[in-house]
Amino acid sequence: MHVAHDLPGLLVVDPDGRPYAALPASDLVRMLVPGYIQEDPVLAEVIDEPHADRLCRALAGRKLLDCLPVGKPFLPTAAPDCTAMEIAELMARTRSPLIAVVERSSSGPDRLLGVITATHLLKQLIQACGSPD
Amino acid sequence: MHVAHDLPGLLVVDPDGRPYAALPASDLVRMLVPGYIQEDPVLAEVIDEPHADRLCRALAGRKLLDCLPVGKPFLPTAAPDCTAMEIAELMARTRSPLIAVVERSSSGPDRLLGVITATHLLKQLIQACGSPD
Repeated sequence: MHVAHDLPGLLVVDPDGRPYAALPASDLVRMLVPGYIQEDPVLAEVIDEPHADRLCRALAGRKLLDCLPVGKPFLPTAAPDCTAMEIAELMARTRSPLIAVVERSSSGPDRLLGVITATHLLKQLIQACGSPD
Repeated sequence: MHVAHDLPGLLVVDPDGRPYAALPASDLVRMLVPGYIQEDPVLAEVIDEPHADRLCRALAGRKLLDCLPVGKPFLPTAAPDCTAMEIAELMARTRSPLIAVVERSSSGPDRLLGVITATHLLKQLIQACGSPD
């Protein structure tokens, strides 16, 4: 689970390991909120903690796929030769906390090389600038 | 700086320590991207790495305040007695990676008690549910 690594979200891959969707942590949290509360937020106030635990347990059998948005999934990707500025521009434009780095292949499936988070990018740029953290 | 703690963003406080705005990390990254590239993303491709470093150094004199959105800042807050479900609902609705926990005061300024991130909330709920991480 992403929480063990304090990541800002999950990159979901398909059964062949190809990147499929980027799920920000706030979207993962949405999985915990029943539809009737999303429609009427005031109802959240009347659910006490034990009830919240019960709702959480009810998630146990659900798959991540059930929680992905319908239609074309949101997946900002970049090529391995992208510059830091291109990554920053993509991240700022999509407001995504993570970008999948993907190697395109003309002969086979695209290959996931890694994930860049906003925090990781800022860290790298601060180091490149030589300023103290 | 937030990057040292792998946080998904910054909570900006005013000079009296009152919470003022929540800045997701992707918005911080936007600070790095010049306006002309935000308007025409293709230009990001023609900026090479040394140039990106120079742009980064150009940020040195800028204040966080210069980077906040104009108008009413975005700041999702919750009271200390909010339930996990209320926090989850607020986080999912605002798509914010962080929520400020604020104690309202009738006699003085509101007081910031802390910040809850999406990852922290998921960790707590997983623990409450007793499932393995």
